[in-house]
Amino acid sequence: MEVFEAIARRHSYRAGFLDQPVPREDLRRIVQAGIQAPSGRNAQTTSFVIIDDPALVQQIAEMEGANAAQRNAKAFICCIIDRQPEPTYEDLSFVVEDCAAATENMLLAITALGYASVWIDGALRRQGRAEAIGALLGVPEGKVVRILLPLGVPEETWPQREKQPFEERAWFNGYGAE
Amino acid sequence: MEVFEAIARRHSYRAGFLDQPVPREDLRRIVQAGIQAPSGRNAQTTSFVIIDDPALVQQIAEMEGANAAQRNAKAFICCIIDRQPEPTYEDLSFVVEDCAAATENMLLAITALGYASVWIDGALRRQGRAEAIGALLGVPEGKVVRILLPLGVPEETWPQREKQPFEERAWFNGYGAE
Repeated sequence: MEVFEAIARRHSYRAGFLDQPVPREDLRRIVQAGIQAPSGRNAQTTSFVIIDDPALVQQIAEMEGANAAQRNAKAFICCIIDRQPEPTYEDLSFVVEDCAAATENMLLAITALGYASVWIDGALRRQGRAEAIGALLGVPEGKVVRILLPLGVPEETWPQREKQPFEERAWFNGYGAE
Repeated sequence: MEVFEAIARRHSYRAGFLDQPVPREDLRRIVQAGIQAPSGRNAQTTSFVIIDDPALVQQIAEMEGANAAQRNAKAFICCIIDRQPEPTYEDLSFVVEDCAAATENMLLAITALGYASVWIDGALRRQGRAEAIGALLGVPEGKVVRILLPLGVPEETWPQREKQPFEERAWFNGYGAE
């Protein structure tokens, strides 16, 4: 799929998936797209766990607070970062940016391959959910599941949510310029 | 350009650009890709200033500490966020993630259209550089230039920097699993 089309079609999907597994070949391609994302000083701070074992998928799908995409997911991808990252440039760390760039690459890859997903972040930081998933996956103490992507072949066709027009968010040569 | 090719070809470019302007049509397409990025609760927290006025481009290019891509840029794109963002989910704000996802979309669009760039972040948070650019662009007090993308048609062909192999960053069904 052409890159501008993938960017325009990517959307946050929160409905059901068809009863079709996601082949490992596709899961690897998606995560490889995440690996190829930029990271501050190329420090490559994000690691990934792909969940396609049916029993594990079910355990995560049945977690309290799961949305429909999570409840019906055929596979998950977790992005994992350090809880207390080392600085990579003077006193700055870019783990949050690194992880977000990797996630966006994976969402575009997911779209291009005909799957759908939704970026789950805030909900993981509530009621010990990130820690519960981390425990299932053997994530070490100093690391945390920051992002969860449920995925599968979508049952429904959803559009991208509406965005403000260009003129309200972007200007040439001056903030808010005509 | 196909999305996986754009992901594989995107790289951090820090050398010179050909003496060719970047047409506004292309700058708009690139920033539109940023606008279409996901954001926490679709809050669309990033705004953008595109700099193609030659005098302004030169002022930013000549800032102390600029790398070769910045010194020779034919245009710039700035991503602007709130300094003290309002929470969008309980007490959490996602402006850093939103801005990073928009930046990655723009880097892929830049790659697809035959330009090159580099994600400048940490350096802006030193020696008042973000504030100096903000003052040139009339960025309001409560907002800050978080990312600067210099761009143009690259003079040299650079590869993406080497990434650790899949097996060292990603596993199936368990952190560090075989």
